[in-house]
Amino acid sequence: MSRRDLLTMIGATAGGAALYQAMTTLGHARASTYQGPIKLQGDPGAVKVLILGAGLAGMAAALELRAAGYEVELLEFREKAGGRCWTLRGGDTYAELGGFQQEISYAEGNYFNPGPWRIPHHHHAVLDYCRRLGVRLEPFIQKNHNAYLHSVNAFGGRPQRFREIATDYRGHTAELLAKAANQGGLDELVSDEDKEMLLESLRISGMLDKDYTYVKGLHTSEYRGFQRWPGGGVGAAPSPSEPIGPSAILQSRLWQWLGEAETVDHQETMFQPVGGMDMIALAFEREIKDLIRYNSKVTSIQQDETGVTVTYEDTGSESGKQETRADWCICTIPFSILGQIENNFSDGMKGVIDKVQYAGSVKFGLEFNRRFWEEDEQIYGGISYTDLPISLIGYPSGDYLSGGKGVLVGGYSWDAAAYQFTAMEPEERIRKALEYGAMIHPQYRKEFSSGASVVWHRVPWALGCYGVWKNREADYSRATRFDGRTLMAGEHISYLPGWQEGALLSGLDAISRLHDRVLNG
Amino acid sequence: MSRRDLLTMIGATAGGAALYQAMTTLGHARASTYQGPIKLQGDPGAVKVLILGAGLAGMAAALELRAAGYEVELLEFREKAGGRCWTLRGGDTYAELGGFQQEISYAEGNYFNPGPWRIPHHHHAVLDYCRRLGVRLEPFIQKNHNAYLHSVNAFGGRPQRFREIATDYRGHTAELLAKAANQGGLDELVSDEDKEMLLESLRISGMLDKDYTYVKGLHTSEYRGFQRWPGGGVGAAPSPSEPIGPSAILQSRLWQWLGEAETVDHQETMFQPVGGMDMIALAFEREIKDLIRYNSKVTSIQQDETGVTVTYEDTGSESGKQETRADWCICTIPFSILGQIENNFSDGMKGVIDKVQYAGSVKFGLEFNRRFWEEDEQIYGGISYTDLPISLIGYPSGDYLSGGKGVLVGGYSWDAAAYQFTAMEPEERIRKALEYGAMIHPQYRKEFSSGASVVWHRVPWALGCYGVWKNREADYSRATRFDGRTLMAGEHISYLPGWQEGALLSGLDAISRLHDRVLNG
Repeated sequence: MSRRDLLTMIGATAGGAALYQAMTTLGHARASTYQGPIKLQGDPGAVKVLILGAGLAGMAAALELRAAGYEVELLEFREKAGGRCWTLRGGDTYAELGGFQQEISYAEGNYFNPGPWRIPHHHHAVLDYCRRLGVRLEPFIQKNHNAYLHSVNAFGGRPQRFREIATDYRGHTAELLAKAANQGGLDELVSDEDKEMLLESLRISGMLDKDYTYVKGLHTSEYRGFQRWPGGGVGAAPSPSEPIGPSAILQSRLWQWLGEAETVDHQETMFQPVGGMDMIALAFEREIKDLIRYNSKVTSIQQDETGVTVTYEDTGSESGKQETRADWCICTIPFSILGQIENNFSDGMKGVIDKVQYAGSVKFGLEFNRRFWEEDEQIYGGISYTDLPISLIGYPSGDYLSGGKGVLVGGYSWDAAAYQFTAMEPEERIRKALEYGAMIHPQYRKEFSSGASVVWHRVPWALGCYGVWKNREADYSRATRFDGRTLMAGEHISYLPGWQEGALLSGLDAISRLHDRVLNG
Repeated sequence: MSRRDLLTMIGATAGGAALYQAMTTLGHARASTYQGPIKLQGDPGAVKVLILGAGLAGMAAALELRAAGYEVELLEFREKAGGRCWTLRGGDTYAELGGFQQEISYAEGNYFNPGPWRIPHHHHAVLDYCRRLGVRLEPFIQKNHNAYLHSVNAFGGRPQRFREIATDYRGHTAELLAKAANQGGLDELVSDEDKEMLLESLRISGMLDKDYTYVKGLHTSEYRGFQRWPGGGVGAAPSPSEPIGPSAILQSRLWQWLGEAETVDHQETMFQPVGGMDMIALAFEREIKDLIRYNSKVTSIQQDETGVTVTYEDTGSESGKQETRADWCICTIPFSILGQIENNFSDGMKGVIDKVQYAGSVKFGLEFNRRFWEEDEQIYGGISYTDLPISLIGYPSGDYLSGGKGVLVGGYSWDAAAYQFTAMEPEERIRKALEYGAMIHPQYRKEFSSGASVVWHRVPWALGCYGVWKNREADYSRATRFDGRTLMAGEHISYLPGWQEGALLSGLDAISRLHDRVLNG
């Protein structure tokens, strides 16, 4: 009996409420491995846990372990908590590897999230901690039909509105499929009954006329936009816009970005914290600030049969090497860094640490004197996509229609495109990002105010954006297991690489297994 | 030379900035008939304008005419301004035609917009007045992939997640089209080059495998959702969900709602005022409160060669009939009401007034003890669609993840579905809306707190939702013309019926023609 059959039976015999209960039990209704606030029951006794790294994984572990009765100490390399949950604001200084330093000069209230910038609706752990810790959320706009799709090789390099490409692509492909169906081309694939439904659905979804053709007219303009938009009073009648022909749509390749907002990670509704992503880090930090030792650069991790000894330098003072010891260790240091720290982990774990690579990416936060994307082009939040090396331009999902300066994500690229920016000095990077962006928004040239960029391979405390498993099957489970008295945690110890949810779930999984080990041996 | 050719030439020869300028000039970049704040230049002298109705059309007209130097008087039937820009909150009382009175008992901060509830990104007049008058806006979530599509006749009446139906429909239709293409069925319709692009685009948009087949797997699950979602730590690997077969998708008819958010009126990004739609009305009212005579029921409109005399009853006192006179009149009273007021408009205008019908609709604001749609089902804003008489369930686009009571739009129906609710008493309406809604959210039964409903044919000051032109070609232009010393305005005098943008544009168009007449005769 399939799950679907079972649900049908329950629905038919016991009604909706029973059905909903069954759906939940069967794992249908709640889409996550997060099952609400963790409950670590049972007294651990006098047990100390040392946590390395005050990112989200480490801070959630610290918060929950202390609540369960553990003694907790948390070492953090930086002068503040958050890790990759990070926001830059005016007055901040950021020094990257290679000695380059950026002084951020955004106007009051403006910010840039170099790392994560959006929260999917199914990242229940992140959302639940936001709720518990009082982090205010607002929608992050991923998809904006009025933003652009842009290719240097299509339409003479002129950006096209998303809604026009999306509508015309849908219309033309629906017409093609309807023609194939009407000419008998699908007769071996679909029944007559299904064909009838298919044609009706195509007429609706493809905005086809009665002859199943996608044509210029007010109906298609209701989707792709009008030539003259409907108004009020005299002369208010709209006029239709001209669809772009099927060949031009197909050859443009702009369809490559139409589905960006259709993946579960980008589907509406998405969120962002009001005021910057690090509002989440700050909320955690408020709870456990007394547990954190800042400016602590770990130099050695040595385990023995009864505990873990960690040596660290206090980079904020002249006090030299320090040592601390605990019964257990939760290590959230990225493997990119951990591989360079003296340790006596098992050879198996050392091998895994060395094999995980860290993705490179670059992200730009460009401030302009006015929000021209809103004022001139009516783009409120969302993303324009391009095949230029900047990959995209992200518009701020907040403070809409406000006056004054605004900050765009002026580029967010990976791999090859990121590497070319990584090789540049910060000033050169910004110059290139402006040059590219001006091909989409000519206003860049006149309105630019200041910019920041973060290339993740040069971030001293991460050396990359997130962990990439070359051979996940073989290595991942090894990395999750106890190595002596240590458990690894962080986004790299998850199937949600690069996402804060992965970091949190990994941290919670680690402490629940640690607690079990402490209680039950 | 086509507009497209012209733009190509400009882009090639003069670069992006010139191109953008040309796009704007050619009406491409700015999608509205609204061209920024109206400028009524020239001194009208001592001219008085009487405005009937303090909805958005009337208030915008009053605000701008006064700024241009006119003497303005505004008569409003109700005790407050706003018209159909209306919000109900706890403590409000609403009496509908037929004598039924509803006492609204929502918790503090909760509200329900019986009329307009969303603002498209291209309604530039509404957005610009919000900016000018300081109305705070937040995104209105129209599309939510995690909301439901529901039909009593499909899937045993069990609601389906939007993302599952959308993904499977897209996947199956892409597979069919790819098969048709690969079997030569499109050879007479597309060139070989276009076919290659088509197939590549279908593999991406349809999430097809290398054989152009839509199959169960982690790739399709990244769009439709997983059976077991990816997690962190041990046992975190995801497992794929099972797509619904093509026949079940097609026969379900749930595809009928997939495009609801694809029309320009519903495309992201949409807005709502923070705290309720009437924040817009209140912002206008603050500016021109001294011009408004409330509780003024117009009983007669009489024009002569030099002006307009309006008789009205002060329904807030015993003072009986009042009279006022002005040089000109802007009449924003809905034709459904105006047809019942004694007047000496021309026979032509009277005929038009009688011929415009007013659409019926019903909307429910249901308050529940907790936001179960968020807590149990992870639905944050957006809309579920159903073929039940309630048509849809709208989730609040704000105060996400907050505790306490929340208000749903428990139904928003038109025409036949609305009429059956119109015939019911308010209590009965709510009972039916709860009965229907519980088929989608069984939690309705336990969590219901209180409800309000507005059937627009029973709204005393509108008698319907918006004006419907039976013969727009012939009648509309007649309605826009001066009738003696009067100009009509309001959403009915626009090609944006039922939208606040139509009301504003109509009001602005009327005063600009009035000003021209005053100055130039």
